[in-house]
Amino acid sequence: MRIGGEWRRSVSRTADGRGACILDQRLLPWEIAWVELRSAADAERAIREMWCRGAPLIGAVAAYGFALALAEDASDGGLTSAHAFLAAARPTAINLRWALDDVAARVRPFPPADRAAAAFARADAIADEDAAMSRAIGSHGLALLRRMAQEKGRPLNILTHCNAGWLATVDHGTATAPIYAAHDDGVALHVWVDETRPRNQGALLTAFELAEHGVPHTVIADNSGGLLMQRGEVDAVIVGTDRVAANGDVVNKIGTYLKALAAADCGVPFYVALPTTTFDPATPEGAAVPIEERAEDELTHLTGPAGTGALATVRVTASRGRNPAFDVTPARLVTAYITERGLGGREVLRG
Amino acid sequence: MRIGGEWRRSVSRTADGRGACILDQRLLPWEIAWVELRSAADAERAIREMWCRGAPLIGAVAAYGFALALAEDASDGGLTSAHAFLAAARPTAINLRWALDDVAARVRPFPPADRAAAAFARADAIADEDAAMSRAIGSHGLALLRRMAQEKGRPLNILTHCNAGWLATVDHGTATAPIYAAHDDGVALHVWVDETRPRNQGALLTAFELAEHGVPHTVIADNSGGLLMQRGEVDAVIVGTDRVAANGDVVNKIGTYLKALAAADCGVPFYVALPTTTFDPATPEGAAVPIEERAEDELTHLTGPAGTGALATVRVTASRGRNPAFDVTPARLVTAYITERGLGGREVLRG
Repeated sequence: MRIGGEWRRSVSRTADGRGACILDQRLLPWEIAWVELRSAADAERAIREMWCRGAPLIGAVAAYGFALALAEDASDGGLTSAHAFLAAARPTAINLRWALDDVAARVRPFPPADRAAAAFARADAIADEDAAMSRAIGSHGLALLRRMAQEKGRPLNILTHCNAGWLATVDHGTATAPIYAAHDDGVALHVWVDETRPRNQGALLTAFELAEHGVPHTVIADNSGGLLMQRGEVDAVIVGTDRVAANGDVVNKIGTYLKALAAADCGVPFYVALPTTTFDPATPEGAAVPIEERAEDELTHLTGPAGTGALATVRVTASRGRNPAFDVTPARLVTAYITERGLGGREVLRG
Repeated sequence: MRIGGEWRRSVSRTADGRGACILDQRLLPWEIAWVELRSAADAERAIREMWCRGAPLIGAVAAYGFALALAEDASDGGLTSAHAFLAAARPTAINLRWALDDVAARVRPFPPADRAAAAFARADAIADEDAAMSRAIGSHGLALLRRMAQEKGRPLNILTHCNAGWLATVDHGTATAPIYAAHDDGVALHVWVDETRPRNQGALLTAFELAEHGVPHTVIADNSGGLLMQRGEVDAVIVGTDRVAANGDVVNKIGTYLKALAAADCGVPFYVALPTTTFDPATPEGAAVPIEERAEDELTHLTGPAGTGALATVRVTASRGRNPAFDVTPARLVTAYITERGLGGREVLRG
C-alpha cells in the first residue's frame, strides 16, 4: 500500500536486521509513529496492547517476536516459554498460534546458537508469504469487482467493517486487497467504512489507509449499513476474519454478523477475504470459538484530538459497559470466500 | 420516572403557567439542567437542536410551542405561520405534525384573544394523555414480561436501542415503560443498552434514566447485540419508533433494523412499543418515509467529560462521514406491537 506516497509494508526488519519495525496503530491517523521492536517483551506488548492487530500481521509480528526471544535465550526451555508467552498475548487470533508453531517446528532441530538467525529468516519468509497471499486475494477480488463494475456501469459502493487492511496484514490487506487492486486498475469505486465501535478501527485505520492510497471513502456509524443496503447504496460487503471454522462460520470483529444479516436480507453479496492460514479446520463451527471479552474502557472512553490538536480522552457514558470483541457469521450468510487460491465456497479455504 | 429520587415529568408548565420546563438533554448525563421555554423560537430551537427529542415528547413540546406562539401573535396569519415554523423543526417525527394539527384545529374556532389559553390547556391535555398512554403501554408490557420471567425462572435480559424512554415521552417512556413497570413490580431484569451511534442516546440518555430509576443495566456497542442474541443473553428486544406505516413497517433510529434481523435469526422476540399517535396510516410502507440526513459532525466528533471533568469535543475520524438518522424495520420482523390498547399485531395500532 502507498503511505506518504511510498509503497511500504506494515512490518519489516529494522535496518540493522536485529529487530522489527511496525507502526504504532494506536496513534493513527493522528500520529504516524514507526516503532522498533527490540525484544520478545516488546513484541508481546505490541500484540497484547494492539499497537499492531489483524490476524496476519499478528502472525508476522509474533514470528519476529519469537526470533527476538531466541536471540535472548535459545535453549529448549527458552523456546518453550517464548512460545507460551507470545501465544497468550491474544487468545482468539489463529494466525498467532500458527506462526509460533511454524517457527518453533523449523528452529527446534537447529543447535541453540543458530536458532535466532533461523527464526529471523523464517519470520521474513512468513512476511513475504503473507504479502504474496494478500496480493493473490487482491487479484481474485479484482476480477470479481471488474465484472461487477461492468454489470452496474457505474462506480461501485463497497462496505467494509473494522480494518482488514494493509494495517492488519503485511501488505495489501485482505478485505482491502480487492479494493486497492481495483482502484489501481482503474475500476471506479467508493468505500463505506463502518466506524467499528468500540475501538473505531474503521473510522481510524481503514479510513486512514484508504485516504493514504487515494481511494474515495466515507465513514458511517455501524448502525447505518442496513439502511444503505435497503436503499441500494451498497453493491457488495467485503470483510476480513480472525478465524474461519471447518463449517465455514466466520469469526470476525463484533458487528460483522449484523452486516451479513442485512446483506442477505437485501440481496447484497457478502464476501469474506482471508489467507487460508486463517482457516482453522480444527474448529468445527463458530459457536465453539471462545470470544475475547476486552476491557470496558475501550467502550466507555474515547480518545481523539481536541480543538487544540492535543489528544484528549473523554467519557462516552456514565454507566458500566461490556465489550465482547468478536461475533460469528454463520456460513449460510457468506456469498463467497476470497482466498489466495480463488473465489468460491468452502473449497477455497483449504490451502 | 424517578429522577433525583422524585417522580417528575420530562415536560411540564412553568410555575407561572406561561412557559414550559424541559431538561436540556444535550448535557445529560453530565449535567442536569432544567430550562424554561418562553417563546415559540425557544421551543422550535429546543426541538431542532434536540434539547428534547423522542416522538411523543416532541409532540408535547411543540404543542407548548404553539401556545407560546399564539401568546405572541394569535391572528389567523400568526396561527398558520407558527404551525409551519414548528412543523419544519424535525421533518420525520410524525407526532410533531400530529400535535400541531390537533392544537390548530381546536383553537382556530376561538377568537384570537382566547387562543393562547386554549392552546396551553390543550398542550397540558396532550401531555396528560401522553403520560397516560405510556402508563398503559407499561401495563401491557408488564404482563408480557411477568409471563416471560415466570417461564424463564431467572432475571430477564432486555435489549433496547436508542432512547425510547421517559426522556422521549412525557413520562414512563415507550420502550422503557414495560421495563419501569416490571422493575417497580418486582420482576428482576437487566437491560442491555445499545450505545446508539452517532448521537449515543443509549449510552447517555437511556443509561442515565435507568440509573436514576435504579434499573440494572449495561451499555454495549451497537455491534454487540447480535453476539449476545446468538449466545442466549437476550430474552427480548424492545424499541420505540418515530413512525409506523400502514403496513406495520417501523421507522426508528438507525440500526434498529439490524437488531430486528438478529432477533429474527436468533429466535428472540422483537417488540415495538408506541402510542397509537405514532401510527401513520397515511404512509403506506416504510420505504415511503423520507430519511432525515443529519450533520456529519454528529458522527465525526464526540463530546464528553475529559479527565478534568470539563466537557471536551474530540475528533472520531480524520475522514468525511455520512449520517442518516433512521432506518426501516419491515413489519415481518416485528413479533408484536405494544400500544396503549394492548399487545398484538397491526390491530393494536389503530387508536
